[in-house]
Amino acid sequence: MSIEQETLHQQSIVIDGLQTCDWSRAIFEEMREGGITAVNCASLLWENFREGIDYVSQWKRFWRENDDLIRPVRTLTDIYAAKAEQRTGIILGWQNTSPLEDNLEYVEIFKDLGVGVMQLTYNTQNYSGAGYLETRDSGLTGFGYEVLAEMNRVGVLCDLSHVGDRTSADVIAASRAPVCISHVLPRALKDVKRNKPDELLVGCAQGGGIIGISLFSPGLAAGNDATIEDYLDAMSYVIDLVGEDHVGIGTDFSQDRPRPGPWLLWANRDKGTARTLTPFGSATINKPQGIARIREFPNLTARMLARGWSEARVRKLLGENWLRVLGTAWQPAARKTPSLLPPQ
Amino acid sequence: MSIEQETLHQQSIVIDGLQTCDWSRAIFEEMREGGITAVNCASLLWENFREGIDYVSQWKRFWRENDDLIRPVRTLTDIYAAKAEQRTGIILGWQNTSPLEDNLEYVEIFKDLGVGVMQLTYNTQNYSGAGYLETRDSGLTGFGYEVLAEMNRVGVLCDLSHVGDRTSADVIAASRAPVCISHVLPRALKDVKRNKPDELLVGCAQGGGIIGISLFSPGLAAGNDATIEDYLDAMSYVIDLVGEDHVGIGTDFSQDRPRPGPWLLWANRDKGTARTLTPFGSATINKPQGIARIREFPNLTARMLARGWSEARVRKLLGENWLRVLGTAWQPAARKTPSLLPPQ
Repeated sequence: MSIEQETLHQQSIVIDGLQTCDWSRAIFEEMREGGITAVNCASLLWENFREGIDYVSQWKRFWRENDDLIRPVRTLTDIYAAKAEQRTGIILGWQNTSPLEDNLEYVEIFKDLGVGVMQLTYNTQNYSGAGYLETRDSGLTGFGYEVLAEMNRVGVLCDLSHVGDRTSADVIAASRAPVCISHVLPRALKDVKRNKPDELLVGCAQGGGIIGISLFSPGLAAGNDATIEDYLDAMSYVIDLVGEDHVGIGTDFSQDRPRPGPWLLWANRDKGTARTLTPFGSATINKPQGIARIREFPNLTARMLARGWSEARVRKLLGENWLRVLGTAWQPAARKTPSLLPPQ
Repeated sequence: MSIEQETLHQQSIVIDGLQTCDWSRAIFEEMREGGITAVNCASLLWENFREGIDYVSQWKRFWRENDDLIRPVRTLTDIYAAKAEQRTGIILGWQNTSPLEDNLEYVEIFKDLGVGVMQLTYNTQNYSGAGYLETRDSGLTGFGYEVLAEMNRVGVLCDLSHVGDRTSADVIAASRAPVCISHVLPRALKDVKRNKPDELLVGCAQGGGIIGISLFSPGLAAGNDATIEDYLDAMSYVIDLVGEDHVGIGTDFSQDRPRPGPWLLWANRDKGTARTLTPFGSATINKPQGIARIREFPNLTARMLARGWSEARVRKLLGENWLRVLGTAWQPAARKTPSLLPPQ
């Protein structure tokens, strides 16, 4: 890696749109090693209200005990501070709105507690809509329109990564704030359900949102043989589709989660206890060669520059686009009063 | 009322497929006055797990404190005992599966606690399917197929009254046990969403189930001017459609619930706290004249006989059909192993 490449990485705001690691001091050290400014830490999948509270408490403990490595993030100012302090900023995120249970008012409760990103559904149907593995997707429910409006009102970024196609389209059409697809790959390059079709990527971008390109090798054309170049090819495809202002990184790193292991087996059951959803069983799923671990983050910057991408573009992809979207979504003011009614 | 009419009423098993009263000793006294053998007591609408437990506890208290008037019902033997003891048997019912929250295993927990009837959804989307007021109904969810299979396995009767049309059709197709539509009117006589179309009534009957005809006047052609004769006309229509073995009574009596009042306003919000679902506001909704209160139950028997209906038919409509369906649904054995997978 050249000095120029290293310098750019060190100087840039680097934001990872989603990780689901089994958090520990070792992970936080590796985030520092990878030069990461902020991470959406979203290991919450099927949890309910009380466990949603416990997820916040757990992070308060991590922050106390690892104060030299990490800090909480609620605003852009916190992200800039993390950069200046050479710590990694932790954004609290959810991959499901299950902790809201049936109570609309809990969106604001959890925003007050620092939850800044909520994926509307995990893999199946919840009160708000359908996940991508639900057999049928009828779109945003009436309650889902209200949850989205509350997220818009209080300033929570809505994530659509695991959300079903029709529900995703409804959110994109109804949201008064930009949304994100924090960790995803384009279906145009590999036709699997977890990837998103072009029209949803375009819709997300047109609403001012961001698409975080994921490292999930089975979603790349090359599958488990994929390298960092295949990853950047997927990123390049999405840049060509929606423009370089609407693309970022969302690694989906799940370090220290054994595969297969109890956590992933739990994740792969509907609501953690019901039927098994996908037959991944004991399959090994590799991250692309060259970007297989958190500490390899600087390789992304190096390989982007090696493609002849401008420094301005690389800075956008590394973090500036995420900064803009987070800043807009977290600003509760200056938006139209959202309609609470679904279209008839 | 003739002596023959009174005698038939007194000798018959009389089952009310659903009430949602504000329970009290006064209500239990009136059940006795009405000559009612057993009632599905289903005042649970949006409650969650803990409140579902509390609903059971509340009834244990009612049973202790009103032991001269009411008794618990878990089996047909309990219903026959109630008849012999001149008490009213209380069947514990739910109008939502919300107390299961996200846990499939709670179906059996609540069956053990005596819950014998569960309506799959109240008015909107839940984890299992859509209610009739949900904007779009994608049918039974994957989780819903599993909940239904558990209800079949452990012996809980599934109720479809407030369930959306498509979800209802999916339940009818998938259930290994008879289901009920405990309180409903035919859409053929009045085209409102809460009423059910002929094909669902027929489907329910073909699966061995029962349709309880409701006293909800706005669902009758005559609206709030309806009389007991209009009610029996609706019953007659359904008998002609599905046969006299698949029809019963499901009054939906909500005595001592002021309209408008806090409980009904709560009921009319999605999940009790979100948007208001129907504009009923301060509207007065009458029960049909002649069967406006629980104590007027014997009028039903009298007016059925006055139509020239045979004693055998009247006994079926009053309670024998409910007995057969409850007995079959509550018997967990001797059924095929249900498929856990939704149709692709």
